[in-house]
Order: sequence, then C-alpha cells, then structure tokens
Amino acid sequence: MQTIEKTEPKLLELKARLAEIHDIEAAASLLYWDQATYMPPGGAAARGRQLATLQQISHSKFTDPAVGELLEDLRPYEESLAYDSDEASLIRVARRNYEIAVRVPAKFMAQLSMHRTQTYEAWVVARPTNSFATVEPYLEKTLDLSRELANFFPGYEHIADPLIDFADYGMKASFLRSLFADLRNELVPIVEAITSQPPINDSCLHQLYPEAQQLDFTLKILEQLGYDFHRGRQDKTHHPFMTNFSIGDVRITTRVYENDLGQALFSTIHEMGHALYEQGINLEYEGTPLAAGTSSGVHESQSRLWENLVGRSLGFWNYYYPQLQAAFPAQLGEISLDTFYRAINKVGRSLIRTDADEVTYNLHVMIRFDLELQMLEGSLDVKDLPEAWNERYRSDLGIIPKTDTDGVLQDVHWYTGQIGGMFQGYTLGNLLSAQFFEAAILDHPEILIDIEQGQCITLHNWLKDKIYQHGCKYTATELIRGVTGASLRIEPFIRYIRRKYGQLYTL
Amino acid sequence: MQTIEKTEPKLLELKARLAEIHDIEAAASLLYWDQATYMPPGGAAARGRQLATLQQISHSKFTDPAVGELLEDLRPYEESLAYDSDEASLIRVARRNYEIAVRVPAKFMAQLSMHRTQTYEAWVVARPTNSFATVEPYLEKTLDLSRELANFFPGYEHIADPLIDFADYGMKASFLRSLFADLRNELVPIVEAITSQPPINDSCLHQLYPEAQQLDFTLKILEQLGYDFHRGRQDKTHHPFMTNFSIGDVRITTRVYENDLGQALFSTIHEMGHALYEQGINLEYEGTPLAAGTSSGVHESQSRLWENLVGRSLGFWNYYYPQLQAAFPAQLGEISLDTFYRAINKVGRSLIRTDADEVTYNLHVMIRFDLELQMLEGSLDVKDLPEAWNERYRSDLGIIPKTDTDGVLQDVHWYTGQIGGMFQGYTLGNLLSAQFFEAAILDHPEILIDIEQGQCITLHNWLKDKIYQHGCKYTATELIRGVTGASLRIEPFIRYIRRKYGQLYTL
Repeated sequence: MQTIEKTEPKLLELKARLAEIHDIEAAASLLYWDQATYMPPGGAAARGRQLATLQQISHSKFTDPAVGELLEDLRPYEESLAYDSDEASLIRVARRNYEIAVRVPAKFMAQLSMHRTQTYEAWVVARPTNSFATVEPYLEKTLDLSRELANFFPGYEHIADPLIDFADYGMKASFLRSLFADLRNELVPIVEAITSQPPINDSCLHQLYPEAQQLDFTLKILEQLGYDFHRGRQDKTHHPFMTNFSIGDVRITTRVYENDLGQALFSTIHEMGHALYEQGINLEYEGTPLAAGTSSGVHESQSRLWENLVGRSLGFWNYYYPQLQAAFPAQLGEISLDTFYRAINKVGRSLIRTDADEVTYNLHVMIRFDLELQMLEGSLDVKDLPEAWNERYRSDLGIIPKTDTDGVLQDVHWYTGQIGGMFQGYTLGNLLSAQFFEAAILDHPEILIDIEQGQCITLHNWLKDKIYQHGCKYTATELIRGVTGASLRIEPFIRYIRRKYGQLYTL
Repeated sequence: MQTIEKTEPKLLELKARLAEIHDIEAAASLLYWDQATYMPPGGAAARGRQLATLQQISHSKFTDPAVGELLEDLRPYEESLAYDSDEASLIRVARRNYEIAVRVPAKFMAQLSMHRTQTYEAWVVARPTNSFATVEPYLEKTLDLSRELANFFPGYEHIADPLIDFADYGMKASFLRSLFADLRNELVPIVEAITSQPPINDSCLHQLYPEAQQLDFTLKILEQLGYDFHRGRQDKTHHPFMTNFSIGDVRITTRVYENDLGQALFSTIHEMGHALYEQGINLEYEGTPLAAGTSSGVHESQSRLWENLVGRSLGFWNYYYPQLQAAFPAQLGEISLDTFYRAINKVGRSLIRTDADEVTYNLHVMIRFDLELQMLEGSLDVKDLPEAWNERYRSDLGIIPKTDTDGVLQDVHWYTGQIGGMFQGYTLGNLLSAQFFEAAILDHPEILIDIEQGQCITLHNWLKDKIYQHGCKYTATELIRGVTGASLRIEPFIRYIRRKYGQLYTL
C-alpha cells in the first residue's frame, strides 16, 4: 500500500481521515476495557459521558461529506484495481461502512447512545433482582428504536434484515430461518437421544480449584497455543470478552469460578480464538477499516473452533491433561483422562446459553433469534416476552426457567439498546467452525496428529493464511467460498456432532 | 450553577463545548495511564498515534473561533457576576486557557507532538546506556521548539516566563531567581552543618521487604489517610504518578523496591497528596476547566505536605509505626521508633533528585531551574549541558555524578519536549507545603495531636475547605493570599526545616 500513496493523493487523504477515526474508536474501546476491568465505581458516570462523546465525534468525522466526496472521487481509481487488491478493498469496505453510517442521523445516534446507558443500567439492577418489570419500559423503547434504525434502510425484505446486516453482512432473516429450521430438525433428535441416557458425571470439575492456580494454567495454555503476549494480555472481568486497540494490542478477559474449572478454561480459549483472528491480521492494515474481523459469524467461528473443535477434543487433552493434573494434583491426580474428557463434554437440557454444551447451544440461540424477529414483526409484545421465552424453553429444551434471572434477563444483548441481529452470529459461528475445521483437515490431515502432540501451529498458520490475515477484505460469503469452496452449510457441523457425541453417547 | 443554565444559553453552550473537550482529554489521560500500567509492548506504536490524535482533536475543538466568540459574548454577563462566583470563574479560567491555546498554531502543536514521542524514545534508550550523545540532537531541537513556543507569547521579560506561566501562572523568572537565591542562602549552611556530622544509619530501611506486603501496607495507609478507593485505585508503574479522568476517578501509581522500604511508602503518600487535591474538588465542577489543581506549585504543595510534613513526622509514625512493625515483624520488630524516624529523615549529599531528602531537595531543583534559564537565554549550549550539570553538583552539593545516567539524564522532564518551566513547581511546592501547614496549625492547633493519634481528618477537611474544593477557581497567588493571609514566602519552610532537623542534628 506504500507505492499507491505517492500516486493517489485522494487515497492518502482518505486513509488519513480513516486513521483518525480508527484512533478515536480505539480510545473508546480502551475506555470500555478499563470500565470492565479496573475502573473504580466512582468513575462510572463520567465514563458513560466520555464514551458517548468519543462515539459522537467518530460518527461525525466519518459522516463528514468530505469522506463521501473522496469515496466518490476514488471510484475510477478503485475500478482500475483488482477487486482483491488491498487498495480497492480498503475503498470498498470504507464505502460500505460509510453508506451505513451516513443514513443514521447524528440526533438518532445521540438518542440511542443515551438510551443504551439507561437500559443497561436498568438491566444491571433488574437481573439479580429478577425484575422484568424494571426493564420492560426500556425494552419497549429499545424495540421502537430498533425499528426506527432498521427503517433508515428501506427496501428490506424483513425488518430485521438491516440489523442482521450490521453484524453479518449479506445475511437475511428468510435465509437464516430456513437454515436454522434445518439445523433444529437435525439437532432435536440428537438431544432427545442423549438426554434419555444416564447423565455424565462431571463432578470432577466441581471441586475447589483456587483462582490463582486456574489463572496460571490459562496463561500457560494461551502461551502454548500461540497467543502473542507481546501484543496482548489477559485480565479478569465479570463477562469475558476480547477487545483490541491496534493489531499490536489485542486483549482478552476471563472469569474464574473456584467451583467450576470449565469456566476459566474454556472462556479463556474462546476469547483467545477471537484474539488470534485479530492478532493475525495483516500488519499493513493497521489504522484502516480492513483491520477487523469480517463478520460476527466468522469471528465466532474462530472462538468456537478453538474452544470446542480444538479445546474440547480428546486429542488436545491427550497432550494437555497431564499438565492440568500437575497443576491440580489433589483434584485431578486420580481422575482419568477419559473421565475428564467426558465431563467437559457433558450434554444436558440447561437454562443458561453461555453454559450450554455444543449440542444444545444452538437451540438456545435459535430461541432468541426467533423471539427477536417476532418482536420486530409485531407478533410478540414486549410484555409477553417472558412468557414466550419460557414457553420456547419448554418446547425446545424441555425445561422451564424458574425465574426471569435465569430466563429472559440472562443475556445482556437486548439491554444494550438493540433488538434484532444480536444472536444469529453465535450459530453461524458454530456452523462455520466445523466447516472451516473440515477444510483445514482436508488440506492438512496431520493437524489432528499435531494437536495430540500439543502442536497447533499447522492449524494456526492455515487459519492465518486463509482467514486471519485478510481482516475484512472479503465479506463472510466471499471468505467462506474462498476457504471451503462451498457456501455456508450445516452438514459439517452435524457430521462433527454425530461423530464426536456418537462416541460419548449411543446415538 | 444550575439556575444560570436556564437564563444564560451562551454559558450553557460554552459548558457543553468545554465538557466535550474535557471528555477527550480524559480519554487521552486514560490512554497514558494504560500505557504506563498494563499496555503490552506491541501496543506502543499505535498508542503514540492515538494520543497525538486525541490531543490534536481537543486542541482544534478548543481553539474553534466559536469558543472565542462565546467567551467574548459572555463578557458582560461575567462582569455582572461576583468575581469568585462559579460562573464568572468558569468563564475567566476558560478564557485564560483559550488565550494560551489559540496563540499556538495547530501545525506547531503537531510538530511538537511528533518530536515529543521521538525525544522520549531516544531518552528511554540513552538513560540506561549513559549516552548523552544519543539525546543531544533531540535536546537541541527541544530547545529550538521551546524558544519558538515562548515566542508565540511576545512581550515577556524573560524568555522562560511564558513557559513558567503554563505551569505556575503569574510566576516570573526574575522573581523566582531572587526567591531561590534567598532560599539557597538559608539552605547551604544547614546542609554544611548536617553533612559535617556523622551520617544517620538507615540500614533498617534496606533489609528485604517483600513486594506484596509493601503494597498491602500502602493500601492500608491510603485507606486510613482518607484516600477514597470508591473514586480511585493504586497500580504499579516505573515512575509513580497521579492522574484523573473525572472527580470520581482519581488514580495513583507507586513503585516498590524490595531493598528500600522508603520508595513505596513515600511515593504512595506523595501521590496520595496529589490525589486528595483532585478528589476534593467541588463535584459541581465536573467536566469544566475548574476541575483541576490551580498550579504546579500548589499541586506539589499537597503531595509534599502529606509526604513530608505529615508522612515523615514523628507524630505520624508514633501512631503508624506499630502497624508497620506488625506488617514486618522480622525486619522491624527490634527496631525502635526513634531509629526508624531518623532513618526516614536521613540528610545527605546525593545525586538523584527524587531520592533526595527534604533539606537538599531544593538544591537539586534549583540547579535544573538555573540550567533551563541559561539554555533558553543562550548562555549555555546543549552540548555543554553535562559539564555544566556536573559542575553545579560539585559546587552546590559537593558531589559529582560518575555517569550522565545519574546526572543530566536522570529526569524525564527535558526529554518530554520542553525546556523551561519544568522544575520551579517542585520548590514552590516545598515552600507552600510549609506555609499552608503553618496556616492549618494556626487555625487548628489540635491537628498535631490528632496526627499522633492517627487522625488526619481535621487537616484533610481544612485543606478541602481552603484549597481542594476550589479547583482552579483561584490563581495560585489568590489562593495563597486567601489561605495564609500572605504572599508566597520562604520563612515557614526554613522554620520547619530548622525546627525538625535541629532535633535530628546539631544545627
């Protein structure tokens, strides 16, 4: 991208403007990271205002008509370049983002930003006190604002489509409904079969595991799996997440439950998957809109690939279990690898999405996805949401939440100011994790043997080469086709589930 | 400030603009804090750029002609108010800051910002490798830029005056030279007298003190002295500092040397003094330019008052020493309070300013102050600085640095892009700490007895009432007169030194 700068001053100007916006957004991300990790409680009020200010400045700088003019002026230049050249891609992605940003009035953004803070604060109080009534009026307003937001993008087939598009560009409600229906049809009989058998005993995970030793072990795993601590760090938060301030600074957080070893272990590997994606982006994209994962679904495919297809595999623990036993001799010294492996892959009908196993997880997601669509369509009122939620848990998972805390209040997503487009990425990610992993194994069958020997470098390099380095140069659709030679499909995931759980249960 | 907002829309608009700028500056401060505490090394390059971007945006928003017009339009309103009303003060302080900011061209600011990063990075390498030659060309440029900066404020008496004014509004080189000469005349004979006596044995401080226990103890001290952890926290950094992102989030950092107990102890109390000032500001000033300490000297007076007049006093340790002994029974169990008290107040001719005792500290500062003036005047070339530095250490402190690492390279100040105005605040702070403390004792003689009983609340409340709450509503000159009924004087400090050290040494 160096040579071009000499010959195309308008691209240089565009890049300077985008870099400034990128810097402001990075600052906002750090403010958020700090809020979740180290900020004292007294800082909260000002922090909310500071975040809103930065978001407003970045939005206003990005929607400056001068940016639109530059993008327009650069059209002939862009068309003179190969579609997948870095320069053409940068202009194309910037234009796509610009066309979204410019349709949403600054006044609406300010209103949404204010509402976001209020509804989140209401949820923080409502969740532990099991009070849906507290958040109900906020959720009504969230629904209104989400509809208003969607309506800035007229011409949609389904009102959720523009909202889905923000996170998973090119996906539509109609396609997802049909995809998810197929998936449900495959999964429900598997869940039925498994849950009619005696449950796996996972008590070995629920002994006392001191926090400090758990954290130590997660750091060792991160190091060995190729997370670059020179360009990242891990801290503790209530809800684990990954965030980044540059390609050189990609951080993750984890949480530790002293009576549940799986929490820290798998949330660390999960967030590491997100982080490997961001750490693997071409360094030349620094400060440009290309320096980001390409969609919610593809991002989640990486967290789930590492967490589940690698991190919950027998091969992986074949190598790492002795290390884990050495870290916790009193707790695991007498526990066999087989017992441990079964425990971390226990399947059951449960209430909490983030704690769900691989087999039932997507059923949790689909419930939320469907309820989002119904609310947006107007066929479900906010006031009826808890009842609809519980009814779906009964019908799909055969279990009913005793409280809204464990029901409709459990996930933060709707309480961050948007209904619609918030959940499909999780299931897309699960499907893609299997589809990508199959493609990797086809290219390098030795990956499975490498993993058994604690070597994930072949897999990591393949992912870097095929996915990570490109940032968001390619759309998810383009990327999936390029990497797997096919479009998004449910079959690899179903094959994976049948193969793995067919060994753990009778299917 | 509530009622006014209804009647004076231009003040409301001014406050909204200033709050936005305040938010950007707070974000920049957090980026800096993170850089010093938790940022992985890979984040450095992007972080420098992000900081420069935020500074550029905040400067450009503040120097927007619309701000100048608002300030002009508000003149009649301001004149209709009492001088020390919050509204008049806000307008006055904003105008003073505006008139400084608007004189410095954005292009110069960008150039300075770039140079700052480069010179700092050069120093980071040069200091440990004892290589003045590495930083010399950068320092030449720093001198040029500092002169250029001063020359944006023509009409000065001495070229350092505008630079001094940034940190200590209203102070002039001529006044400071004469004040410092008087101080030196008083101090030199005291130093002579003390250093001709056998040195105090401070070996009790140089045993092994494990880091974790030292940090624990500093946290206990902070809690008991009234630092509000709900609105702050303490972390570790290479160089301790205080920073704040709102009145509700005022953080400090400390450093721990396992073989030098005094480092963590006194840098914690020092930074706490800065923090109590910022935590004590009237909460109604949040988001306005009034929410800041009023000058470098007054700020330093608070860090030094708590560190030295309180934290190195016999009364203070009369209460806290048993707690310290309980924290370190093996190290201090057999050491008497008297031995400990003497150790923490040992006076000696030393090379490093930040490690210097109360008696010699100002001699270190004055050397730097004089050298700054000489460089700006052109009577000292940058290339001759190390020699001039060493010669002054010989003449003033009777000791010559063996290396530039312990000499001219020891302080970061000149390597942050400015020569001039960087050091006077330390000595002003020492003088004012004694002057304010005397005034407090005159108002509340019981303060000394309270401190002996571990009670600093009377002193803290007096400081809040007289100094902290006002932020920078009053200039340092106004504040000193208001609080002490006199102008800045050296006598209280000399009285304090003579009284205290007359008991430790024969004077």
